[in-house]
Amino acid sequence: MNVTLRGRTEHFRTVSFDAAKNSVQLIEQRLLPHEFKIIGTKNFRETARAITDMVVRGAGAIGATAAYGLAQGARAFRGRDLKKFSAQVELVFKTLAEARPTAVDPVNAMHDVRREMARGETVAEQQALALAAAEEFANEDARHCEEIGRHGAKLIRNGMKILTHCNAGWLAFVDTGSATAPMYAAQAQGKKFHVFCDETRPRSQGATLTAWELAQQNISHQIIADNAAGHLMQRGEIDLVIVGSDRVLGRTGEVANKIGTYTKAVLAARHKIPFYVAIPLSTIDWNLKRGFDIPIEDRHESEVLGAWGVTKAGRREYIRVANPTSGARNPGFDVTPAELITGIITPVGIFQPKELWNKLRR
Amino acid sequence: MNVTLRGRTEHFRTVSFDAAKNSVQLIEQRLLPHEFKIIGTKNFRETARAITDMVVRGAGAIGATAAYGLAQGARAFRGRDLKKFSAQVELVFKTLAEARPTAVDPVNAMHDVRREMARGETVAEQQALALAAAEEFANEDARHCEEIGRHGAKLIRNGMKILTHCNAGWLAFVDTGSATAPMYAAQAQGKKFHVFCDETRPRSQGATLTAWELAQQNISHQIIADNAAGHLMQRGEIDLVIVGSDRVLGRTGEVANKIGTYTKAVLAARHKIPFYVAIPLSTIDWNLKRGFDIPIEDRHESEVLGAWGVTKAGRREYIRVANPTSGARNPGFDVTPAELITGIITPVGIFQPKELWNKLRR
Repeated sequence: MNVTLRGRTEHFRTVSFDAAKNSVQLIEQRLLPHEFKIIGTKNFRETARAITDMVVRGAGAIGATAAYGLAQGARAFRGRDLKKFSAQVELVFKTLAEARPTAVDPVNAMHDVRREMARGETVAEQQALALAAAEEFANEDARHCEEIGRHGAKLIRNGMKILTHCNAGWLAFVDTGSATAPMYAAQAQGKKFHVFCDETRPRSQGATLTAWELAQQNISHQIIADNAAGHLMQRGEIDLVIVGSDRVLGRTGEVANKIGTYTKAVLAARHKIPFYVAIPLSTIDWNLKRGFDIPIEDRHESEVLGAWGVTKAGRREYIRVANPTSGARNPGFDVTPAELITGIITPVGIFQPKELWNKLRR
Repeated sequence: MNVTLRGRTEHFRTVSFDAAKNSVQLIEQRLLPHEFKIIGTKNFRETARAITDMVVRGAGAIGATAAYGLAQGARAFRGRDLKKFSAQVELVFKTLAEARPTAVDPVNAMHDVRREMARGETVAEQQALALAAAEEFANEDARHCEEIGRHGAKLIRNGMKILTHCNAGWLAFVDTGSATAPMYAAQAQGKKFHVFCDETRPRSQGATLTAWELAQQNISHQIIADNAAGHLMQRGEIDLVIVGSDRVLGRTGEVANKIGTYTKAVLAARHKIPFYVAIPLSTIDWNLKRGFDIPIEDRHESEVLGAWGVTKAGRREYIRVANPTSGARNPGFDVTPAELITGIITPVGIFQPKELWNKLRR
């Protein structure tokens, strides 16, 4: 999407590749929203570290990063010995797969790349195919998000007030995003609307990343405390909710997403406000039988006990907010049942959660 | 309640009076939870400033502070001229009433004190009566909270997990608190239970004040993000919710309280978890006809856009968390309808919200 720096507007992807330098180019997301910086990794190990250290995060974005990282590692090989080359590729694959062990996207993306590479007969051919496949993976991720936008934009009418939770924006994908895609598409169609961004404690991705994205795209928006959405719904100030998801169960239509999503769905149902979940098809899990079995990560309590930000003097600091002798409980995700979800916005159309199995199962 | 400082446990009230020094003694609440300090005001103007600057906050606590402040101002008068004395008392009353103009408690408390003073015939008698009346006001506030505890403790069974929101603890009253009173009483009865404190963004009173209180009283507790209660309820990890209130409508049973209370009530109703509101009778508004008419203060956006806390180096700092080019919407309170409330815990018993009018109206 567009980013305006010192008055100049330029288009960026979250992840891209500099073929001349054999370098993966990443938006350094840990500096956002306070600083915008592109970093280039020198080799596949640096790329793996960028995934581990959350320079880049979000399903689509880390998938593309791993795909590019595999091509980067393959292209760094010197020589024509296919056996040695394959051993090198294996090492690269393993290193990148271990960068964030619980994520499935990097592994899936790299499988795509390796399948394409197998069509080449020489090292040079396989190296070229690796980069082409990684580019295709990234392009496809961006295209899918655009399609989500095309379908989802129909839900947005002039004057609407839309609530979103956490960041399912272009920073989490290669471009455009999932939950934000309908907003960007509606804006391109000239529609006017207002977005409330849930702060999304404890990591505040709504207040930092989503708010930054919307500000860059000149979309009217305000950040609210996670406590405030219920009151705004009660007063008729929210017309539509769109969120993303980490995993949608194809069998049941249940949606796992950032902690707090379930709460917003319960409130929306009470107030008869449409609640939509926007996802690429790769987010659908066709195997798991019930949402209760989705593992809910208990994250470190320091996230709840304090906050990261910038002091008046401009230093980036963690501050302890909570009572120093108290601990915290910090579940990272929750599961929203299908009955609370109006529809799932996908690149191939909008479906009721219970329809996924019959209409989209491959 | 008890506070342990450097290994020594001592009983404190939020507000008390040092007659020898003619000084109102206050816990400096702005330093909590990072530092515990008692400050003494030198004169009624300093007492008024302590109310304005939120050294002391909470309905009962500022009521008692104003009552003591009036006695303090009256006792500072030198001479026997009743007319001059009355003029002085009038000035003190006005100064303290204007310290926090929207609050009703200071004015109500000072009316009580002035009514008692009127029984005296000399300046000295009125001065003595002023202090006695202020002490009686503070004692009564503490007694009411203890009665709330006595009734509310019956709701707490061994092994329960209790959710509370914001701070309706002893720091908001003279002692014991409202929402916390049943917990302190149940603990005194030897019951074991666990409390989840909602962080309560944007001002984090749950993470700071309530967590500090519970830690001081050795009550098992954890802070959670405001987003997490829904998930915990879904997994059967919350058995009871107790909150306080800023205003309960006697006619309808509607409850105004800190933003986010309504959300917790909606979630509790969905999960059939009892939801109680603990209040002294002075919190009941017998006049207002509907909750929609309760004015909801829109507070400064800086509260949502950042946080106060302590850096690793021990400095108290405000950090900006949110995107610097985004604004915020910050409603301070919300209104929970009677249908979502299991009961109102008062000093004279537990009532269904719709019963207040018939059973308690004076």
